[in-house]
Amino acid sequence: MASSPTSPTHSRDPGLQTNMEVDYVIHYQFADIDRSQATQEFENLTQALASVGLATEVRVGNEQSLLIFTRVASEQHLFGEVYRSRVRDWINGVRAAAPKRETEEALREEPLYEAERLRIIYQLITNPSADGGAGITPKEGEWKNVDSVFPLHDHVHNKAWIKKWSTQWFLKPEDIDEIRNRFGEKVAFYFAFTQSYFAALIFPAAIGASAWLLLGNYSLVYAGVSCLWCVVFVEYWKHQEVDLAVRWGVRNVSRIEHKRKGFNYEFETSDPVTGEKVQIFPATTRLQRQLLQIPFAIAAALLLGTLIATCFGIEIFISEIYNGPLKSILVFLPTGILTTGIPVLTGILTNFATRLNDYENYETRGSYDDSLTEKIFILNFITSYLPIFLTAFVYVPFASMIVPYLDVFSLTCKPFAENDKQLKAPDTGFVIDPSRLTKQVIYFTVTAQIVNQGMEVVVPYLKRRGMTKYKEMQNERAAKKGGTAPPPSENDEPEEAAFLTRVRKESELDHYDVTTDLREMVLQFGYLSLFSVVWPLTAVSFLVNDWLELRTDAIKICVEMRRPTPWRADTIGPWLDSLAFLTWLGSITTSAIVYLFSNNGLGPDGSPAEIKGWALLLSIIFSEHLFLVVRWMVRLAISKLDSPGRQKERRERYVVRQQYFEESLNETAKLPAMDELNQQMNRRTLEDDARETSLGDSRAEDRFWGRQRGWKETAAVGRNLIESTSTEKEKKAQ
Amino acid sequence: MASSPTSPTHSRDPGLQTNMEVDYVIHYQFADIDRSQATQEFENLTQALASVGLATEVRVGNEQSLLIFTRVASEQHLFGEVYRSRVRDWINGVRAAAPKRETEEALREEPLYEAERLRIIYQLITNPSADGGAGITPKEGEWKNVDSVFPLHDHVHNKAWIKKWSTQWFLKPEDIDEIRNRFGEKVAFYFAFTQSYFAALIFPAAIGASAWLLLGNYSLVYAGVSCLWCVVFVEYWKHQEVDLAVRWGVRNVSRIEHKRKGFNYEFETSDPVTGEKVQIFPATTRLQRQLLQIPFAIAAALLLGTLIATCFGIEIFISEIYNGPLKSILVFLPTGILTTGIPVLTGILTNFATRLNDYENYETRGSYDDSLTEKIFILNFITSYLPIFLTAFVYVPFASMIVPYLDVFSLTCKPFAENDKQLKAPDTGFVIDPSRLTKQVIYFTVTAQIVNQGMEVVVPYLKRRGMTKYKEMQNERAAKKGGTAPPPSENDEPEEAAFLTRVRKESELDHYDVTTDLREMVLQFGYLSLFSVVWPLTAVSFLVNDWLELRTDAIKICVEMRRPTPWRADTIGPWLDSLAFLTWLGSITTSAIVYLFSNNGLGPDGSPAEIKGWALLLSIIFSEHLFLVVRWMVRLAISKLDSPGRQKERRERYVVRQQYFEESLNETAKLPAMDELNQQMNRRTLEDDARETSLGDSRAEDRFWGRQRGWKETAAVGRNLIESTSTEKEKKAQ
Repeated sequence: MASSPTSPTHSRDPGLQTNMEVDYVIHYQFADIDRSQATQEFENLTQALASVGLATEVRVGNEQSLLIFTRVASEQHLFGEVYRSRVRDWINGVRAAAPKRETEEALREEPLYEAERLRIIYQLITNPSADGGAGITPKEGEWKNVDSVFPLHDHVHNKAWIKKWSTQWFLKPEDIDEIRNRFGEKVAFYFAFTQSYFAALIFPAAIGASAWLLLGNYSLVYAGVSCLWCVVFVEYWKHQEVDLAVRWGVRNVSRIEHKRKGFNYEFETSDPVTGEKVQIFPATTRLQRQLLQIPFAIAAALLLGTLIATCFGIEIFISEIYNGPLKSILVFLPTGILTTGIPVLTGILTNFATRLNDYENYETRGSYDDSLTEKIFILNFITSYLPIFLTAFVYVPFASMIVPYLDVFSLTCKPFAENDKQLKAPDTGFVIDPSRLTKQVIYFTVTAQIVNQGMEVVVPYLKRRGMTKYKEMQNERAAKKGGTAPPPSENDEPEEAAFLTRVRKESELDHYDVTTDLREMVLQFGYLSLFSVVWPLTAVSFLVNDWLELRTDAIKICVEMRRPTPWRADTIGPWLDSLAFLTWLGSITTSAIVYLFSNNGLGPDGSPAEIKGWALLLSIIFSEHLFLVVRWMVRLAISKLDSPGRQKERRERYVVRQQYFEESLNETAKLPAMDELNQQMNRRTLEDDARETSLGDSRAEDRFWGRQRGWKETAAVGRNLIESTSTEKEKKAQ
Repeated sequence: MASSPTSPTHSRDPGLQTNMEVDYVIHYQFADIDRSQATQEFENLTQALASVGLATEVRVGNEQSLLIFTRVASEQHLFGEVYRSRVRDWINGVRAAAPKRETEEALREEPLYEAERLRIIYQLITNPSADGGAGITPKEGEWKNVDSVFPLHDHVHNKAWIKKWSTQWFLKPEDIDEIRNRFGEKVAFYFAFTQSYFAALIFPAAIGASAWLLLGNYSLVYAGVSCLWCVVFVEYWKHQEVDLAVRWGVRNVSRIEHKRKGFNYEFETSDPVTGEKVQIFPATTRLQRQLLQIPFAIAAALLLGTLIATCFGIEIFISEIYNGPLKSILVFLPTGILTTGIPVLTGILTNFATRLNDYENYETRGSYDDSLTEKIFILNFITSYLPIFLTAFVYVPFASMIVPYLDVFSLTCKPFAENDKQLKAPDTGFVIDPSRLTKQVIYFTVTAQIVNQGMEVVVPYLKRRGMTKYKEMQNERAAKKGGTAPPPSENDEPEEAAFLTRVRKESELDHYDVTTDLREMVLQFGYLSLFSVVWPLTAVSFLVNDWLELRTDAIKICVEMRRPTPWRADTIGPWLDSLAFLTWLGSITTSAIVYLFSNNGLGPDGSPAEIKGWALLLSIIFSEHLFLVVRWMVRLAISKLDSPGRQKERRERYVVRQQYFEESLNETAKLPAMDELNQQMNRRTLEDDARETSLGDSRAEDRFWGRQRGWKETAAVGRNLIESTSTEKEKKAQ
């Protein structure tokens, strides 16, 4: 354990200088099974890998595990896989043109990038054998002892990457391209989104700072500009997404459906279209199951809502009614309950949501993930925004009605109170604290963000440190006891030792899930769209936070996580809907907040007496419909924008189309040209027909068409008719 | 003038039995120009027709006009055009597969239907010569004396059609298919929509009748069901549209862009994609011009609104305040003003809208038409619904506030009043007439529909009759004066005379515009979605009306209009947006009406005292959001539905895809199979490499991969490792 990857010495660590040309490492755990089974499984594993053309080397891993190093044995076979993948892309509309038939030529024209290579090899390892893969699915079924299949970090590049980013104020598109080349489009889309969001934040940060200085909180002008910004940002990101997808050649990739492993069918039938056997799970059954989402959402809202509302009530009771001893400590009681209760409850509910999602039995991985994301968004929505909603729309308007009932919470403080008077509101009358909302928004947009940032970086680091320490101690203890459990590196070849030590470390890192990071950004955007009118500096805080976020996420991927499998994506997926929803909701909350608080929410007696229900509702209706109109206009305007990506796409399609068109029209060129000569020829045969038939049983139609021969005769007859008519007219005029 | 097409004798009229194989008739007018110009133009005309392979015959038309009969001279040339059109379709994604290269074979597989043939010939006549047409554009530029280019009615079929429809209660899909085959998809889409709407009306008619009997007006239950029906109908029609488009092979036809003739470009540039010269009119300039729509809409609303509101005020004044003489006649004064004023004002505004649309300078015919349709929809929206809006949302809630000011209208009645007392409201206090809204809705949904129906059928008939009479009288007078203006039929060949008389009559008929009929249906749907809660029998009235409407429209096309050019379409176009908008608005108006009128809008003193602003707004907000959620769910559910059209489309795409896939994958099959043998071969070379390099300057990577040879060695090493580790564990356990 001489060096940790974060230590400044690691550039000199020989283990970090090469990946030994390894494509993937397979981590096989055999602690829980007996020897013969392990041996058998391991043999199957190596055979399966070999059957798809992967070369293997095995080394000892940490604690009863083996590390199988794999790489593609024959580049030619990989090319076959690449070609097959590209043909599939073309058929799904991801590529405009079919790839060249000659594999080598196709690859010369479009060389593989690292992420593409890794993705294809990963699919080779994990796809079912029917699709030409080895079918090794970590932690599932037959392969439940395969702990993970992961590529190795490229530490030389990672170091350069982090160094570059930490010294650079602004990320360029090329920086994102590099992420795409290394970690795949799915991760790159997260970084592109965050960078785009970060850049866009400069505008509301500037406006917010000016509004804060000049207009104060609850400014109508700032509210309008902020909503407009949200709409423009979301719509522009959609536009950018298409551009990025084209730039990276992954447009329409989400159309390619990947069957989900856990899918259970009810019956098999033959597809009316293709005649193939298909497994059917009726959509109506699924719909019935999906209806369970409604009670689930209500239950989640009630559970979390009750917890939050209770803590909220206790807090108000303690801070604004209770005046007995220990008040300064008791005030933290609700925060304590919340910080322990919420994660526990969320954990349980997330678990429940996942089970519900499994039960809904989606057919493809894409629809499964989308549906789960939606469910988790609902949970996060409640925990993130409900406290502020309660303050803004329950506490302020109704506090004077509710506070008398807060006596129920006197129980919480009773043990500490010296007399009952301390548990009663003073007779001077309860006064609403108008700064409570601002304080709360500042807490969520500054304090919580910093805490969160810290949790994300510091906690895993400490955890890792602690684990290492713990293991060392365990080993020491074992050594003292006499059982000389040797370190796994004992038998390493000296020249491989450093490399293997590093790989063992990487095999123990966590799995990187990009949706967690995306969720964080979307929830942050929600504070901006829903509540930033309360405290216009919100965007400034986020601007600083996101600059850091981008860098710490880079560090997180490089240092704290296993290198992720580079999946493709052409969008940030269902989060886009969440963004659109938050923007819409923002148009409602912002107008309501501005109406309620524009005079700090207080009537002459400290309670908001002047609030008129109809005026509040009218401002909400007005603002919401204004939002819908503005959004429609912004969409229309953005749809007119051209972009390099769109041009590229059009160019590709044009080339393909042109080629087809030329091929096809060569055919029509062979058809007789329809010039006058030709027509007269036809005419002559017609005349012959007419003459022949005029004698015998000719048809009226043939006689009709036989009267004028060729256009010259028609013109001549026409001339006569024109002249005779005109002459009559002239006669009449005379 | 022995027989008119409507007379029962026409089946025996020989002129109706054959179309003489004529494809198109070109009506050339030369009354306004001198003889030599007419002769020259006519020669150009015949030459242009001949140049694209059309045979011509000329005959005398009515009053200084010529009728040029055209037909395709060579079927082979037509095939060329058909093939070209099908290739263009395929490239635009209208067809899944490219048409067969061999023209005859392609036509044998997919024979031309009548409308397709006529469309292609029409394009041959009217397309610019650069696109291979004759460039003859009626009433425009060089061809402004070409009055019209029209196909001839197939009277035998038309008669059968009308007979069939008038004896059949319900139309079958095949009936609509036949319209498509004869009149093209654009007309067929109108009939399909109306038929689908008619069928769907049965449901709200049944519910409405029950609600009327059991629940009375303003029933919340009926309101909910009606809104739901509107959503389902609109969404289901969208679904059906796709199906019909696939059934008729015109899906994506709206993607094919037709350049508009009147388009003016600002500059030419070369397309960044194709390198072709393109004419550019900047979107920003157009946007600036489009902004004029806002003042236009406001001005139109103000003008029409003022007229309507004034008449409304006068009417209330006369009917509810004025009690002098002539009251029973004066009451019709506002109606009189409206029925003369509205058409005049609408005419002026439509003219203005058309000019504005021209000024907006659209590039394609499609976008021009869409934009014009939107503008005209706004005008129609105001004239159709504003009167009811005024009654429901101004008269009832605010009448007691407004009525005193209606004295201004006393001027209108002053000449008739005997004393001033008759012009003042009686002291007993003004009482709102709660049945006014119901009466008005009944007027618009029954009376106005019947009147409209009559106008549509009877007025053109009378007009045509009048014109014939007038001409006869004119001729008689001319004959009396001695100027023997001979009828045009004077020199007709006897066997053609009946045919030519009929063609002359058809050449004078009006042009059929399907959008007018569609607009009527959409506006009718609007009454249902917006106001049917006022009088639940609305749908019953419409059901009866639309049964007739379908039949009279059929008669109209066959008898009163020239046969329309069969255009293609894959949707009812912007009217779909109008339907969606009316449904949305319906969710608002319905809830507001139910809230306002559920106790007939009257407080104890006859004025609506109990109306609470916040409750009204809250019910609107609630109902609108409920609508949005329900619409989303209905969309989701309908998107899961399969249909024969969709299956057909998928099948076609599948076949094409399968073919490509097989072609492409034949290539990959040639790649070496990656079996063990192969791998061992690779392995052997690797071994050789390893041995060779182990002596000299070998790389660490090569040595790493050289340790285990083939998967069997890896498996063997793995077994050893597993056993040794386990043994240690067992040792420890001991």
